[in-house]
Amino acid sequence: MVTAAICLLSGGLDSTVALYAALADGYSVRALTLSYGQVHVREIDSARRIAAELNLEHHILSISLPWKGSALLDTTSPIPVGRDSAEMSREIPSTYVPARNTVFLSFAASFAEARGAEAIFIGANALDYSGYPDCRPEYFDAFSEVLKRGTKAGVRGRSILIETPLLRLSKKEIVELGIKLNIPFEHTWSCYQGRKDPCGECDSCILRAKGFQEAGLTDPLVTRATSPQYS
Amino acid sequence: MVTAAICLLSGGLDSTVALYAALADGYSVRALTLSYGQVHVREIDSARRIAAELNLEHHILSISLPWKGSALLDTTSPIPVGRDSAEMSREIPSTYVPARNTVFLSFAASFAEARGAEAIFIGANALDYSGYPDCRPEYFDAFSEVLKRGTKAGVRGRSILIETPLLRLSKKEIVELGIKLNIPFEHTWSCYQGRKDPCGECDSCILRAKGFQEAGLTDPLVTRATSPQYS
Repeated sequence: MVTAAICLLSGGLDSTVALYAALADGYSVRALTLSYGQVHVREIDSARRIAAELNLEHHILSISLPWKGSALLDTTSPIPVGRDSAEMSREIPSTYVPARNTVFLSFAASFAEARGAEAIFIGANALDYSGYPDCRPEYFDAFSEVLKRGTKAGVRGRSILIETPLLRLSKKEIVELGIKLNIPFEHTWSCYQGRKDPCGECDSCILRAKGFQEAGLTDPLVTRATSPQYS
Repeated sequence: MVTAAICLLSGGLDSTVALYAALADGYSVRALTLSYGQVHVREIDSARRIAAELNLEHHILSISLPWKGSALLDTTSPIPVGRDSAEMSREIPSTYVPARNTVFLSFAASFAEARGAEAIFIGANALDYSGYPDCRPEYFDAFSEVLKRGTKAGVRGRSILIETPLLRLSKKEIVELGIKLNIPFEHTWSCYQGRKDPCGECDSCILRAKGFQEAGLTDPLVTRATSPQYS
């Protein structure tokens, strides 16, 4: 019997690779995208397209976090640009959205319970995002315990697993895994800024560029942005 | 310094008593109500009124759980009526909403982080609702661990506490505590059905009636429903 998995799909590179990893593992995938007022709504269009091309059950939910508390939610607060990734991992960045992964995983848990899914896939990464407390291995272990104690499946001894296939991969390895899984890089969107083309300067653009560069590849999004017919 | 607490306020009896307990503990209270498509939207109006009379910062967020999976979310699925509370605690009832408290606590955690709040109050009760996996003490312990590992405050050694003042109280004791804290019982709403007056037959009405009866008191909501000028 094919078992179901819920995949949190932001439309970015990491979550798309995680979703394709779930498909490669043989899961019947259902995708979940949460729109939380992030400045980079472009990601949502990417998620829609990726899920539609795979013909997945896909829910896009709008949630409101009216208390703000993050540069990603507040248009008056600047997105940090031009930092290196060592700098990103030393501190909790202003782009940290309070309890974001906890909100995401809780919706995924509800969806998983309703569909009898056995796993939740999330494209979190602990190397480049170790500054975010909710991207660390011990955080996911703690949330697994919540699923074991606080869901119908869990108390019946068949808990929902949290799968983090990218947790310990470098950005280079994520790009390489994406190549292997044949993900449509050109449809993913990583930039934190809400412009037509990637800014190339925010944390997310810098990490993505680093991944492609170290893997010896060209990012199709960047090629497109710099090629004359798109400019 | 007065420290802040986030109180999950459904507008029902239990969450209102929990909110008044937070005020009695000296917290600066901010209230959070989540409207998740429940049949009993009457509760939301109660929550609005209770928070407004106390002049609290109050957010009412609409969230969508489009995958259903609960009698409370599905108008075609009947609300169970006429059961006794022993029966309610033996099984997971059809009114269980998948991962509901996990979704609620995750939003409260985000709000708490953004406001620097030190505690989250939730009116969960393990005696009458032990059938719900997300109302048990071990579930709240697991979620506390998530807050310790996955929030900015937590990793800085000042984790957000989950306060469950009603967890081990009987419904009689909850009513008695409500009297002591002077809560406006007449503004609370417990019934699972979406009618003008409480149905008197659903799990929630039965438990509420039991509480008032055992405390030797009359529920003002029921008095109003049966008094001629309201009929």
